[in-house]
Amino acid sequence: MTNQQLFIRKATKLSLENVQAGKGGPFAALIVKDNNIIAAGTNLVTSTNDPTAHAEIGAIREACRTLGTFNLDGCEIYASCEPCPMCLGAIYWARLSRIYIASIMKDAAEAGFDDALIYSEFTKQIGERKIPMTLLPQNEALLAFKEWKEKKDKIKY
Amino acid sequence: MTNQQLFIRKATKLSLENVQAGKGGPFAALIVKDNNIIAAGTNLVTSTNDPTAHAEIGAIREACRTLGTFNLDGCEIYASCEPCPMCLGAIYWARLSRIYIASIMKDAAEAGFDDALIYSEFTKQIGERKIPMTLLPQNEALLAFKEWKEKKDKIKY
Repeated sequence: MTNQQLFIRKATKLSLENVQAGKGGPFAALIVKDNNIIAAGTNLVTSTNDPTAHAEIGAIREACRTLGTFNLDGCEIYASCEPCPMCLGAIYWARLSRIYIASIMKDAAEAGFDDALIYSEFTKQIGERKIPMTLLPQNEALLAFKEWKEKKDKIKY
Repeated sequence: MTNQQLFIRKATKLSLENVQAGKGGPFAALIVKDNNIIAAGTNLVTSTNDPTAHAEIGAIREACRTLGTFNLDGCEIYASCEPCPMCLGAIYWARLSRIYIASIMKDAAEAGFDDALIYSEFTKQIGERKIPMTLLPQNEALLAFKEWKEKKDKIKY
């Protein structure tokens, strides 16, 4: 069995155990660097009352704590299911190099999860989305961007 | 001044202070319930080494801790800038009722942030994205979904 097969199986096994333990939804993820697992996460939304506590978010946060960086370039993520928009966004911000998945969005949708629905919202014009978004323009918001651009000692991310 | 104007100004002011304090990017967000601010967040990516520590994520997590729930239905979020895909996803999972923003994605892009780039990735076919995603199908992943569907005492989210 290849390392890839080992890691994806482990992620999948964790997703099943997470349901059985009653900790949250059927999702788990691992972060791998140089063929070593450096972090793991499972869905803990309902057990921690945190709607952002998805498996990938938990694994990314743990990997960053472990490595002491906000940049996971060179690391790979193994997820039991195709990431939702929130988690895919997090994967991009974390600069992960590669994603492996054991199942797809349609499988999650059939089990009652809204991933596909949320992705479809992203393709809509702002005025046609379920959650209304209103622009209340503020000059000070642009000033914050200006100060950021001019800040000499800023740490880019 | 309306309450909406007060809240969006406060979010914007926090975003500017966040840059000046060197805590992270020029972003802040507030969660409001029944015209009361119940949580606030600013971008803490670089100061906490957490790529998921965006303003909206921080505010949502704090609001959920405060209310003891993972569902913020009936709450509104005031953000200094249009949410990135990760944060918009989190807003949907948290079931927030409304979004107010003080600036738009283009303003963030001009200041060097990748929000627009990440949104554009979402519209691409999986094979054409910058971060490769590979399906390694596992029966056990489907078993986790099956157990979830059949679980009698599950808490849906």
